[in-house]
Amino acid sequence: MPIADITIIPIGTETPSVSSYVAEIQKVLQQNTDRVNYQLTPMSTLIEGELSDLFDVIQQLHEIPFTNGIQRVATNIRIDDRRDKKSTMAGKLQAVEAKMKSS
Amino acid sequence: MPIADITIIPIGTETPSVSSYVAEIQKVLQQNTDRVNYQLTPMSTLIEGELSDLFDVIQQLHEIPFTNGIQRVATNIRIDDRRDKKSTMAGKLQAVEAKMKSS
Amino acid sequence: MPIADITIIPIGTETPSVSSYVAEIQKVLQQNTDRVNYQLTPMSTLIEGELSDLFDVIQQLHEIPFTNGIQRVATNIRIDDRRDKKSTMAGKLQAVEAKMKSS
Amino acid sequence: MPIADITIIPIGTETPSVSSYVAEIQKVLQQNTDRVNYQLTPMSTLIEGELSDLFDVIQQLHEIPFTNGIQRVATNIRIDDRRDKKSTMAGKLQAVEAKMKSS
Repeated sequence: MPIADITIIPIGTETPSVSSYVAEIQKVLQQNTDRVNYQLTPMSTLIEGELSDLFDVIQQLHEIPFTNGIQRVATNIRIDDRRDKKSTMAGKLQAVEAKMKSS
Repeated sequence: MPIADITIIPIGTETPSVSSYVAEIQKVLQQNTDRVNYQLTPMSTLIEGELSDLFDVIQQLHEIPFTNGIQRVATNIRIDDRRDKKSTMAGKLQAVEAKMKSS
Repeated sequence: MPIADITIIPIGTETPSVSSYVAEIQKVLQQNTDRVNYQLTPMSTLIEGELSDLFDVIQQLHEIPFTNGIQRVATNIRIDDRRDKKSTMAGKLQAVEAKMKSS
Repeated sequence: MPIADITIIPIGTETPSVSSYVAEIQKVLQQNTDRVNYQLTPMSTLIEGELSDLFDVIQQLHEIPFTNGIQRVATNIRIDDRRDKKSTMAGKLQAVEAKMKSS
C-alpha cells in the first residue's frame, strides 16, 4: 500500500509554534482509522492506505488550519507507492535493518 | 486558487533518464486544461486549479509510470494555498518583482 | 551540474505574505552569480552550480528570514544530480520538448 | 537545534528496492554521532545537529549512491529550524502530545 509523508505548515501564525495544529491533525486521523494507519514522527505525519483514501484524508488535513482562521497553508507531501510487493511502514524499517545486519 | 508543484519519480528505470515520463505527464495535463492551468519548469510541473481538481489530476499523473511498467513511484507535492486574496502563478512572480524594485 | 529547487518559508510572520523574503533571496543570489545560475518560478527558486556551492548558497538563503527577526524557518530542498551527462536547467526542458514532438 | 528530514532516491536502479542504499546511509550516520543525532523512520532519515554539520553530513549521504555506481540521485530535504527555544526531535513529539491531552 502507498505511504504518504505529510507536513502542513500554517503561514501567518504570529508565533513560531505550530504544535496545536499538529495535535488537531492527529485527531482527524483518529477518526479515519477504519481506512488509514498513521504515525507521528518529530518532523511529519505518515499515513498508509489506499491511494484514493490517502488523497481524501490529506485534503481533510490540509483544511484544518483554515478552519482555525489561518489564511495560507503550505502542505508538503511525499508519496512512496510500491506495487511489486506488499509494502508497509513496519516492513520498510525491517528491510533496512536486515540489510544492515547482513553486510 | 491553490498551486501545486509536483515531481513524479519512477524508481527502477534501468537508465537515469526520466524525460519520457515527464513528456507523458504534459500530455495528460493538456487533456485537463478545462479545469487546471499548468507550467513546466526545469525541476517540476506546476498546476493551478481548485483543490479537489488538483488532487484528482495529481492522482492521474502519479499513475502514469505504473501504466508504463514501472513498479515504484516517488511523488513529491508542494501545495501553496492562499485564501485571503486571489493568488495566481503569474501574480506571485509579479509580487516578488514589485518588492525588488521598491526596495 | 546538480540543480536545487528551494522554498524557504518563514513561520510566525503575522501576515500571509512572504514576497518580501523571496525578494531578499533574489538579491543574495544576484551576489553569487559568479558561481551559481538561478531562476525564480511561481513556486520556488532554482539554483544550478557545483554541489558544494549549492549547499553554501542555500545555507546563506536559509539565514535571511532570521536576520529579519523571524524565529523559525522551514526550508525545503529538492536536489537533482545527474552525472552521466551534462545536465542544465535549459537542457532538461529541451529534453522533454523533444520527447513530446517525437511521440 | 535544526532538524533535517531527508530522502535520497537513486535513479536508474533496475529494481524497485532501495533498502541497501538506506542501510549504507545509516552506516555513514553512525560514523557522525559525535556531531549529529539521527533517527530512521519508514519514509526518511531525520538528523539533528548544528546547521553547518547537517549540510556537511547531508552532502556525504547524497554521495553514497554515486559511489555505488548510480548515475543520478534525487535528494529531498526538509529543514525545520527554530531559534526562539531549544527544539529537539523528542521535544517536538512531547509538545504535540501535551496539546492533545489538554484539549
